[in-house]
Amino acid sequence: MFITFEGIDGCGKSTHTKLLSDFLNQKGYKTLILREPGGTDFSEKIREILLTSDFNLNPEIELLLFEAARSHLTQNVIQKELESGTAVISDRYFDSTTAYQGYGRGINIDLIKICNYLATKGIKPDITFYLDLEIEEALSRSKDRILDNIEKSGNNFFEKVVEGYKKIADEEPERVIIINANGTIEETYNQIIAHINKKFFSNTSSNNNEK
Amino acid sequence: MFITFEGIDGCGKSTHTKLLSDFLNQKGYKTLILREPGGTDFSEKIREILLTSDFNLNPEIELLLFEAARSHLTQNVIQKELESGTAVISDRYFDSTTAYQGYGRGINIDLIKICNYLATKGIKPDITFYLDLEIEEALSRSKDRILDNIEKSGNNFFEKVVEGYKKIADEEPERVIIINANGTIEETYNQIIAHINKKFFSNTSSNNNEK
Repeated sequence: MFITFEGIDGCGKSTHTKLLSDFLNQKGYKTLILREPGGTDFSEKIREILLTSDFNLNPEIELLLFEAARSHLTQNVIQKELESGTAVISDRYFDSTTAYQGYGRGINIDLIKICNYLATKGIKPDITFYLDLEIEEALSRSKDRILDNIEKSGNNFFEKVVEGYKKIADEEPERVIIINANGTIEETYNQIIAHINKKFFSNTSSNNNEK
Repeated sequence: MFITFEGIDGCGKSTHTKLLSDFLNQKGYKTLILREPGGTDFSEKIREILLTSDFNLNPEIELLLFEAARSHLTQNVIQKELESGTAVISDRYFDSTTAYQGYGRGINIDLIKICNYLATKGIKPDITFYLDLEIEEALSRSKDRILDNIEKSGNNFFEKVVEGYKKIADEEPERVIIINANGTIEETYNQIIAHINKKFFSNTSSNNNEK
């Protein structure tokens, strides 16, 4: 079971990653929470270069570094954990690259897809939740955080990213679910769990004890 | 004027990079010598990760990191220096990635070409010298050096790399010149200079003072 959360900063990805992990633990699953970029010693080093450096990194370099970090994480962690039966829940995965470096920064989408495949060797999430939140609301929810290099790019950039996420969801409606995240945490959570129950527990969702 | 040297370690690339720079200086050119990966603060950091780290890096990550370093070097140094009229001479460029990560490690060559284009935005050398040397001889010439991660891969790997370089030369005979590097430094140098004179100084090669 491989589940990813997507959306702009402040949309609630890390909160719902944890809540979903708790839910799956209660269902008896071992879970692993990841965040991208990161999750291995190498990928954390790349994260540091990407998010805090003063290097003047063009969009192509961002793309290449995100994919390098993703390749290490996928090969060394995600693939092995999935094979051992762990439910892997990740805060961002390759859709972030398509949305940010592709639709946001303007790198050719086919090229992004090739790089995504190179890094993941085709390992895809079973389900991806795109947490859709008004940009102003997301920015205000994340205003206390230090904005990193990638997020410092103004509203017009975020509009392109949000539009990109919606195109991604349009292309793969079976996998990518748009969740209205403008309500309370509980309202968002209930939508997510409804989809999880439908996808994975449709025979047992009425009674956990049947498992 | 953009000139690159290619070949396996120990083939004499750095020696001939310097000798060619001296030759062009005598012709009145300002020159810049580069080595890949490296040449900018960012690219040197990537070089360090690639060549000395204990991370378990797969061929895809090697590819992505080399291209990230190359993109930074091309955008921030090579492009600007070429525009200002400097003759840029580089010890390795994208053909190394095609030979090592493509033919050597087995990543799809079309995919490598896409990544090469992404990193260089189409900036190609005017002429590339592939210094062709027997593998055993190259290894013995470089035996005093500490073999890095990329070079620690045994003779069979080098055979594939050498074969790859020859295919690259076959594909672009106008750009990529195979130089027999089994002789003395002077013999190799004379071959290189003959090609440089033919390519850039065919009207003035008989007498430098005509310039």
